[in-house]
Amino acid sequence: MVREDINREMEETQCPCHKTRERSAEEYTRLIHRLNRIEGQVRGIRGMVEKNAYCTDILVQVAAVNAALKAFNRELLEQHIKICVKRDMLAGKDEAIDELLSALQKLMK
Amino acid sequence: MVREDINREMEETQCPCHKTRERSAEEYTRLIHRLNRIEGQVRGIRGMVEKNAYCTDILVQVAAVNAALKAFNRELLEQHIKICVKRDMLAGKDEAIDELLSALQKLMK
Amino acid sequence: MVREDINREMEETQCPCHKTRERSAEEYTRLIHRLNRIEGQVRGIRGMVEKNAYCTDILVQVAAVNAALKAFNRELLEQHIKICVKRDMLAGKDEAIDELLSALQKLMK
Amino acid sequence: MVREDINREMEETQCPCHKTRERSAEEYTRLIHRLNRIEGQVRGIRGMVEKNAYCTDILVQVAAVNAALKAFNRELLEQHIKICVKRDMLAGKDEAIDELLSALQKLMK
Repeated sequence: MVREDINREMEETQCPCHKTRERSAEEYTRLIHRLNRIEGQVRGIRGMVEKNAYCTDILVQVAAVNAALKAFNRELLEQHIKICVKRDMLAGKDEAIDELLSALQKLMK
Repeated sequence: MVREDINREMEETQCPCHKTRERSAEEYTRLIHRLNRIEGQVRGIRGMVEKNAYCTDILVQVAAVNAALKAFNRELLEQHIKICVKRDMLAGKDEAIDELLSALQKLMK
Repeated sequence: MVREDINREMEETQCPCHKTRERSAEEYTRLIHRLNRIEGQVRGIRGMVEKNAYCTDILVQVAAVNAALKAFNRELLEQHIKICVKRDMLAGKDEAIDELLSALQKLMK
Repeated sequence: MVREDINREMEETQCPCHKTRERSAEEYTRLIHRLNRIEGQVRGIRGMVEKNAYCTDILVQVAAVNAALKAFNRELLEQHIKICVKRDMLAGKDEAIDELLSALQKLMK
């Protein structure tokens, strides 16, 4: 399914109050690329378990996935603050701050 | 490819010094099940990016993947200490401790 | 030394370009109260080491200090975003965003 | 109060079932030294708040305390596994493993 189809489908099925954000082609590509790599890493760990890999070798790979997820977060967070939070603050919508703080709290647990 | 084939292939291609660990059917199933779910969660996050989901909604899902990886770690670590570290210590192989500490250090970063 | 003296001393010794932030009496009191408790917890851990406390009992107390530091961070971060980042964004000073992202990156390591 | 007095007091006031661990002079000194530095760092953060330091400058110092606590944990954990867990495993006391796992779980939250 191409991206346009997915977007059209979303518009049809999603409730109108649901928040979305259009991303630049560059940001979109970087995020998708990171997620593809993370998915590949998780599949690699499953392959290790299937081949009876040694426990600490697996744990080291899990630590690598943690690091990759943090890099994805940083990327998303940076654009979110630079674009969404800024736009909402300039428009006087301070609920963007509470949303951000609530997401940060979950990430810093 | 069934599990036996994968194991046979591993025996053929892996260097003989490489450490492995046979896991009980129960442990194996639980670990694979957790990894399948984590892979599904990562694919779900990619779907959210493809549908222009809002940043903080995505960040909350990343926090859920973090939690699922921690649960996988705990499961693997528990069996590793109860089985591998214990067996090595009883056999006087203290290098198991350094291996464990090095893995823990990477996980606690 | 009372707070006024400390502030005066700071004005004298600090370079004029150094950034500061006046906090409300309520925020100031809450932050100082949290730090006093954390200092007491660290002293308590030293007391445990001095009394030969068992390792895992000490580790559990360290986890409690981690949690207390996270709560302090959250409090500081919330006011920082609500007051400083907002004010700077409204004034068009976007460097506040990079400063925030750089601090978050250090905290989420 | 010197260390001997503290130990004597502990023997008198603690219930006899309470677990303790004698540490080598080197380990003891290293742990106490780390805790003194951490206490000093926390006091330094309080000093920053008292002098109206800027939020992100404070957050960076909190990240430094996090790192120092992790180094303390690593040191304690290493000796705990090398000495206590090993001794208990060789003596057939497997409850040491559950104790360790429970402490690790709190630290990896």
